[in-house]
Amino acid sequence: MRAAVAGASGYAGGELLRLLLTHPRFEIGALTAATSAGSRLGERQPHLIPLAGRVVEETSAAVLAGHDVVFLALPHGQSAAVAAELGEDTLVVDCGADFRLSSADDWAVFYGGEHAGTWPYGLPELPGQRDVLRGTRRIAVPGCYPTAATLALFPAFAAGLAEPDVVVVAASGTSGAGRSPKAHLLGSEVMGSVGAYGVGGVHRHTPEMEQNLSAVAGGPVRVSFTPTLAPMSRGILATCTAPAVPGLTPAALREAYESAVKDEPFLHLLPEGAWPATAMTLGANTAVLQVALDRRAGRIVAVVAIDNLTKGTAGGAIQSANLALGLAEELGLPLNGVAP
Amino acid sequence: MRAAVAGASGYAGGELLRLLLTHPRFEIGALTAATSAGSRLGERQPHLIPLAGRVVEETSAAVLAGHDVVFLALPHGQSAAVAAELGEDTLVVDCGADFRLSSADDWAVFYGGEHAGTWPYGLPELPGQRDVLRGTRRIAVPGCYPTAATLALFPAFAAGLAEPDVVVVAASGTSGAGRSPKAHLLGSEVMGSVGAYGVGGVHRHTPEMEQNLSAVAGGPVRVSFTPTLAPMSRGILATCTAPAVPGLTPAALREAYESAVKDEPFLHLLPEGAWPATAMTLGANTAVLQVALDRRAGRIVAVVAIDNLTKGTAGGAIQSANLALGLAEELGLPLNGVAP
Amino acid sequence: MRAAVAGASGYAGGELLRLLLTHPRFEIGALTAATSAGSRLGERQPHLIPLAGRVVEETSAAVLAGHDVVFLALPHGQSAAVAAELGEDTLVVDCGADFRLSSADDWAVFYGGEHAGTWPYGLPELPGQRDVLRGTRRIAVPGCYPTAATLALFPAFAAGLAEPDVVVVAASGTSGAGRSPKAHLLGSEVMGSVGAYGVGGVHRHTPEMEQNLSAVAGGPVRVSFTPTLAPMSRGILATCTAPAVPGLTPAALREAYESAVKDEPFLHLLPEGAWPATAMTLGANTAVLQVALDRRAGRIVAVVAIDNLTKGTAGGAIQSANLALGLAEELGLPLNGVAP
Amino acid sequence: MRAAVAGASGYAGGELLRLLLTHPRFEIGALTAATSAGSRLGERQPHLIPLAGRVVEETSAAVLAGHDVVFLALPHGQSAAVAAELGEDTLVVDCGADFRLSSADDWAVFYGGEHAGTWPYGLPELPGQRDVLRGTRRIAVPGCYPTAATLALFPAFAAGLAEPDVVVVAASGTSGAGRSPKAHLLGSEVMGSVGAYGVGGVHRHTPEMEQNLSAVAGGPVRVSFTPTLAPMSRGILATCTAPAVPGLTPAALREAYESAVKDEPFLHLLPEGAWPATAMTLGANTAVLQVALDRRAGRIVAVVAIDNLTKGTAGGAIQSANLALGLAEELGLPLNGVAP
Repeated sequence: MRAAVAGASGYAGGELLRLLLTHPRFEIGALTAATSAGSRLGERQPHLIPLAGRVVEETSAAVLAGHDVVFLALPHGQSAAVAAELGEDTLVVDCGADFRLSSADDWAVFYGGEHAGTWPYGLPELPGQRDVLRGTRRIAVPGCYPTAATLALFPAFAAGLAEPDVVVVAASGTSGAGRSPKAHLLGSEVMGSVGAYGVGGVHRHTPEMEQNLSAVAGGPVRVSFTPTLAPMSRGILATCTAPAVPGLTPAALREAYESAVKDEPFLHLLPEGAWPATAMTLGANTAVLQVALDRRAGRIVAVVAIDNLTKGTAGGAIQSANLALGLAEELGLPLNGVAP
Repeated sequence: MRAAVAGASGYAGGELLRLLLTHPRFEIGALTAATSAGSRLGERQPHLIPLAGRVVEETSAAVLAGHDVVFLALPHGQSAAVAAELGEDTLVVDCGADFRLSSADDWAVFYGGEHAGTWPYGLPELPGQRDVLRGTRRIAVPGCYPTAATLALFPAFAAGLAEPDVVVVAASGTSGAGRSPKAHLLGSEVMGSVGAYGVGGVHRHTPEMEQNLSAVAGGPVRVSFTPTLAPMSRGILATCTAPAVPGLTPAALREAYESAVKDEPFLHLLPEGAWPATAMTLGANTAVLQVALDRRAGRIVAVVAIDNLTKGTAGGAIQSANLALGLAEELGLPLNGVAP
Repeated sequence: MRAAVAGASGYAGGELLRLLLTHPRFEIGALTAATSAGSRLGERQPHLIPLAGRVVEETSAAVLAGHDVVFLALPHGQSAAVAAELGEDTLVVDCGADFRLSSADDWAVFYGGEHAGTWPYGLPELPGQRDVLRGTRRIAVPGCYPTAATLALFPAFAAGLAEPDVVVVAASGTSGAGRSPKAHLLGSEVMGSVGAYGVGGVHRHTPEMEQNLSAVAGGPVRVSFTPTLAPMSRGILATCTAPAVPGLTPAALREAYESAVKDEPFLHLLPEGAWPATAMTLGANTAVLQVALDRRAGRIVAVVAIDNLTKGTAGGAIQSANLALGLAEELGLPLNGVAP
Repeated sequence: MRAAVAGASGYAGGELLRLLLTHPRFEIGALTAATSAGSRLGERQPHLIPLAGRVVEETSAAVLAGHDVVFLALPHGQSAAVAAELGEDTLVVDCGADFRLSSADDWAVFYGGEHAGTWPYGLPELPGQRDVLRGTRRIAVPGCYPTAATLALFPAFAAGLAEPDVVVVAASGTSGAGRSPKAHLLGSEVMGSVGAYGVGGVHRHTPEMEQNLSAVAGGPVRVSFTPTLAPMSRGILATCTAPAVPGLTPAALREAYESAVKDEPFLHLLPEGAWPATAMTLGANTAVLQVALDRRAGRIVAVVAIDNLTKGTAGGAIQSANLALGLAEELGLPLNGVAP
């Protein structure tokens, strides 16, 4: 099957290509971008050795047509127009935010402008979601933070163990902020420093977390979400806490998580006493989880580590694409992190 | 005045010496340590150029006697014995945990063993605390995380704006874990990685946060605290959230924080829209603060950045020592971070 | 074919296992170690998800027997005894230094003690070396720095373009120093800092560079080598310079390098004007090269980036093992770095 | 004395201000910049707490007039015009390259365009240079790499111990590349990666190194210089090697260096066996040195660590300004690094 990547010179696009290069069923077709169109891919993605000489084309429906899968790694707001011109039998996988939210109100508050619509949400681990994704031709890849927070807490909410007053504080590597040169993302600024941003409930990934957890809980879940930027290129560590229901025991909590991850190829619950670190997941499609019950404070604390570009974006995109195309869900996706 | 430093070869000891070297009123007397006794300080603290040739002595009351101030930067549990042998008119400033907690029960639960006692708590910014510290001859320097969390939330609790159900998630640089060689603290392990530890309410700094905030709130405050280790040598960024009291407005919240920091030499509230990053405080005794009201989630979110070794340990120690000795509180303490 | 890894809990062992996990022809057999014997591999290598539950055994010839390949990632000096007990038809691949040097004198000067012998040297890119490696049952994997320096300069020496007065300055990630906890390798020490060590021609990899380049040059080559430690977990960037022969032109130099890398699966010469960075090679078996002629100073400057654990150790080991076992040389080895 | 800083929103300007804030004899006057004119300094330099509210003005001679000292931290090529309008009795200290080179030919080759002239060179450690700087009203602050390389090798050349065929390979933190947002300087690109640039004798600091060392040697010295970018914000570690004169002994080499640094307030020669790391100098005006004789390769290897923004730019500027103004050379300049 032939796969095109729109946005091939950015970080999400580069990660898609890295994974596609070793995927046994995909052949890499068109590579497109905006400002870097016309240049060799090697100028922007020098780590993708076999593609170094490939010329990047201008993003357009004409160039993207004729592929079995088109991955869109475009700035927010650009996917709808491109997707509209691609045939309904082409699988379109959007790594942007345009089609993630089901609530037009949330869209208006957090993104502004008109809501483009809602596509099947590409998080196969959500209860029931694999059936939604099998055979679909449109996929909205989740945001990186919502991927992390949802994977951390869905076992607790699915089992009815948590109250709907969630606090999420997450540290992200800088690649999550993209490749556009901005002064506050310079190496000189971010190295040796952890900083907060988007504080106070204003980050756009907040309603997406609420959407996911509310669906699992069967009722509204409120999330206080604070993102921070950490001095690393990749990785998200999300600390997610919610009040425990009365009487919850550590054993019952552990059992809920063990049960939730049991058949999941990309969820790895650590043994008790070990805690996730992002290095465990570098370049892998794996989410590493752990959970504890803080009886003194009456809260469940779940911690998850993912690679924001792999499980959090490109790997998650390919995982859902595998499902949509009837392939084995794990196909072509690394399980192991590159460490140390 | 002559100052001795016990534990001179560790990170806290090194930072004490760095600050004492430029303090206008202290002369550096005895330097003591355990395993590095007998060696030149330059072997362990090569950044302290003027002290490179000084010989480190064995820690003992005999060596530490005869100074106006003795700073103890020893492993937990060793301060009481040393302090007992120093005269009552010697100012003893303990950077360890031994005398921080007022509750023997909390001590037993979180540290184990017998509680050594309670000394005046060296956080001058706590309401009323300067009066406690002036003239004292014993000071318990706060833990680094409690310093951060207390400074972030005391304005809200002092003004009665927050409910006592606090969640703190903090990222710390690795120097907070000390200088003993341990595999999980190797550069290869920590670079490029954020990881959690001490999750679930078991970190020893938890009851100290509760002690401080409860005192300010005038009633029990519960804290769910999760520490994480970030790939940087220094710095703590603490994200601290508590439910807002009904009807709280952003303006009232801002006003409470502005009022709380107004006369504080080491608290710096950023302009609205800017957020703390640890690099702002590197090597400085300054705590940089910001606060927001998340109306959707109903929570106050306060974020603070400090240097864990400066304001979080050695700078805080000297700030309190200045007060105890009748010096200007700011004397010899850097206000400005080293950035970028 | 079944592969055993001795030293499975160290960094080289972990990287061998990461690569073996996705190698299409190897099945992972015994995992052995010293101090961590008896524990689960997941405690030391949490990024190797599918092996998390495997128990690490004590290193012994009995445990290692019965495999087609045994990879030794042991401390220097331990390989000879283990290898002696393994059958001559078992492929033994030693990632240590014991069998790299052909000169017993060099061994005595740089390592001390008795020279264990010399095995076929596992750098297939050296002219003529593939013939040596095909079918062998003993392989000495090159040191990480010699791999870098040799790949950077062999094209110049093979073409007779360089004088034998080489200066190599290389920056290495900290994983090259291994996993034993040492104070100077703590994250707090290495982050934000580049430092020199082993200066003045005393680093053990010096004679190995000389051995390789002398063989290519057909006469003695002297190397001044200075290693430095950089704040990253992985990667070596080696700047290698030698006087140019009189009359050398940039075009002739470029042509020599293009010709040298033309058929090499793991050597990638960048387009003119682009320069190697270690991130291009993270987790890959690729060496990224560039060369320039500094006419003003009369020197060739060649720069190479590798991942010290992959091409510099474990990937190189598997590349040579593939050759020895009659497999395709590239089998199971990643070409693309994980970036950013 | 009143000091103005032109270029106050960049990294060099910020470091000048950090040092001036605690300098006992300077009062901070006008702060000027280009694009950030009109904004509060706190927006660009949030670590400079006491200046957070100061308004940045447009750079112009009118604004800069009336100060005792004007520090210029402007892009190359802009200093001459500003300086021409400032009175001859104003001390003008240029942190840019415009007035560093004495050879108009070198200027034409390496910078292009017309040579603005040559000002007294602000490296007091160069033999005889203090006499040049005392009382001057124009100072050209050396480049950061030339500061490092010159301090590393001047003792050897001054004592006639080295042949004039120098190889310098230096690792720099990213702040040396300035604050303009560029894609290759993003944190995501530089973290975890060391890369080369400006290879092959083309870096502009090359002729400046040759100028300095030739003056010391009393004859032409050729330098092969390769800069690399390391994953840290600050610091330069330069490995500088030159052939030893015949018969040189380690003792004679050591003696030359000890003698050269003996009365230098900012040069610190480490004890034998210890090697410089940039962390030793973070935020300090100190250069930390070590030297070895590699008898096998016949080369002197000198290694130096400096903070590129302090001793390499702003600290060096103030050191020379102190001399020019008749103040104690060390006034207001930190000796100790901030470590770890």
